[in-house]
Amino acid sequence: MKRLTGAQAWYGTAETCPDLQYLSGFAAVDPALLVAHRKRAVLIVPAMEVSRANRAARSARMRVYVHSPAGIVPADRARASRPEDWIIAAMNKLGAREVAVPADFPVGIALALRRKGVKMTVADAGLVPSRRTKTPAEVRKIAEVQRATAAAMCAAVKTIAASESGPGGKLRYAGRPLTAEAIKQTIERELATRRCQASRTIVACGNQAADPHETGHGPLRAGQAIVIDIFPRHRESGYWGDMTRTVARGPVAGKLKQLYAAVLAAQRAALAMVKAGAAVRSIHRAAARIMEQHGWPTEIRNNRRVGFIHGTGHGVGLEIHEAPSLRDAPGRLRAGDVITIEPGLYYPGLGGVRIEDTVLVTREGYKMLASCPKRFEV
Amino acid sequence: MKRLTGAQAWYGTAETCPDLQYLSGFAAVDPALLVAHRKRAVLIVPAMEVSRANRAARSARMRVYVHSPAGIVPADRARASRPEDWIIAAMNKLGAREVAVPADFPVGIALALRRKGVKMTVADAGLVPSRRTKTPAEVRKIAEVQRATAAAMCAAVKTIAASESGPGGKLRYAGRPLTAEAIKQTIERELATRRCQASRTIVACGNQAADPHETGHGPLRAGQAIVIDIFPRHRESGYWGDMTRTVARGPVAGKLKQLYAAVLAAQRAALAMVKAGAAVRSIHRAAARIMEQHGWPTEIRNNRRVGFIHGTGHGVGLEIHEAPSLRDAPGRLRAGDVITIEPGLYYPGLGGVRIEDTVLVTREGYKMLASCPKRFEV
Repeated sequence: MKRLTGAQAWYGTAETCPDLQYLSGFAAVDPALLVAHRKRAVLIVPAMEVSRANRAARSARMRVYVHSPAGIVPADRARASRPEDWIIAAMNKLGAREVAVPADFPVGIALALRRKGVKMTVADAGLVPSRRTKTPAEVRKIAEVQRATAAAMCAAVKTIAASESGPGGKLRYAGRPLTAEAIKQTIERELATRRCQASRTIVACGNQAADPHETGHGPLRAGQAIVIDIFPRHRESGYWGDMTRTVARGPVAGKLKQLYAAVLAAQRAALAMVKAGAAVRSIHRAAARIMEQHGWPTEIRNNRRVGFIHGTGHGVGLEIHEAPSLRDAPGRLRAGDVITIEPGLYYPGLGGVRIEDTVLVTREGYKMLASCPKRFEV
Repeated sequence: MKRLTGAQAWYGTAETCPDLQYLSGFAAVDPALLVAHRKRAVLIVPAMEVSRANRAARSARMRVYVHSPAGIVPADRARASRPEDWIIAAMNKLGAREVAVPADFPVGIALALRRKGVKMTVADAGLVPSRRTKTPAEVRKIAEVQRATAAAMCAAVKTIAASESGPGGKLRYAGRPLTAEAIKQTIERELATRRCQASRTIVACGNQAADPHETGHGPLRAGQAIVIDIFPRHRESGYWGDMTRTVARGPVAGKLKQLYAAVLAAQRAALAMVKAGAAVRSIHRAAARIMEQHGWPTEIRNNRRVGFIHGTGHGVGLEIHEAPSLRDAPGRLRAGDVITIEPGLYYPGLGGVRIEDTVLVTREGYKMLASCPKRFEV
């Protein structure tokens, strides 16, 4: 962003605009508007949210004045007023003459501001760079979610480990077929008791696991890799956790064991490289190289990319995917980053393996926020 | 929107851009881009999502061509390409020369399109007006969520009804203090068994309930109104449900009973007015008038609005709040609308009451999608 003399504006809910929650302390259900200038900000929320927002703003990172739309524009114009009018009123109140908005700001409001003569610029990068570096209080919140994630993972793995192979290799548990849906339910119940919830838990078995974003469905089978990826959000704090394990209810073919061993070696090597100052590109390339050296290439087969087809990790905070991104790109880790390390290999016909932990980057290396055993055959 | 000859573009996830899911069938985890022109569309998703998107697009409302970013722009330019380049490539593929975007489209991409010489306009209203009118298949999906909502509500009410008043009027259940958090957990567990999840369930007791968006916390007390508002989303279909009940573990003061009776009368009257062609304003005004006639005014007290301080209802579909909005505004109900009817009254010091159902608007009146008893003292 070029101009720091003007105000900055955000628009959205706790889901769509984590910066707004980060700065104001307020988890908006309906879209809210935040206009900040130096250390002061105006937060505009629906009338019925004003008192809740006022309470939340007490712990904000700046002095926040909460208003309803009718409370910020002159009474006679309140009814027909629109978000651009509220922003202009807030800018006047804060003494700002121009405004910068993030790239994902709604184009409709942004262009309406320009039509009203406001100098509006779009920030090149995020307006809140400090969100990447977590405070100790934030790390505690992420660790709390990650402990819940680990507990849910343990419950899931325990159930699979206690299952038996039935007709056609389909797993059975407590006298009934064991499905991806049943394991997801186990996970969600465990998370619910810890004030967390996950919306797209992955329990993908066999060929389903070869597609890293297939969430998985139907019967789980013996001898196949089952990828379990749990990324819940805490209901109150809004922070996320993220963990993946891959297990199989044995016996497992040698080839699948080798696939697992390659990913585990890559994850260990990548974790060992994590520390403040490390180049994200070298971590990503090291993970890729180790899996390649184990005999698992990344390439196009039948018009589809197979092998290590995603990045090595990403930042975790008020967004499940945030800076930094660990891939073949410039940039270095910093102390205070909370990141995942999650190499994976995917081959249709054979299956998929991914192993993921969420760690705090420190000057010396990293701190694991919570863990759970890495055992393939259970 | 003025121009229907050009393409239309959407950008977002299943959470942020329901239109994209509605048109393409694809529930995007990471932001996806959809460019539609007449009955054909290009859907651009991360490389690892291509196969899942292709499967989802089979049930789309138009012919959808799925691409990764690298698959839509020339190979030599793929790495440095950005969303605006993908949109231009998709427009070329579809034979479109200009593009309209919704008002909430990211300003960064929109202005980048203009800088590249693309004629880009912002639509005044939504680009998918048909989303408001639900097909029978959609109504079935919403009804499925609403049945889960009703089951969760029944479980919550049953627990409160089975509780006992302990020291200081605090409710106790199974030998322990009964809290808002415990009831939320009961609700979330019930929803989880039905493939639904709610992120901001309200269980607000006493003065907490006077703030309609306070989600509630801490001990529940005898003799106070407890507002329970459950609005879950189905994990697979993406459709929402919405239901509110207010209960009290008796005995209850006469004034609180009168508050409940007023809201119940308003809800009954509003429901009785629901049918295709009814003006939303007259329904809202009728609900407000009835509560006023019962002696409950809407006014400012101590700088805060009290009484009936929100609308009478809203559409429900792939968004929890969508068209139509039932408030003091123009517009009429249509057959195929799925709406809530949810009058409420809020007075700090006394408490709050809200009663809400989700119904399908028909030519003759409405069809309740699922229900649960309306009993105040339990």
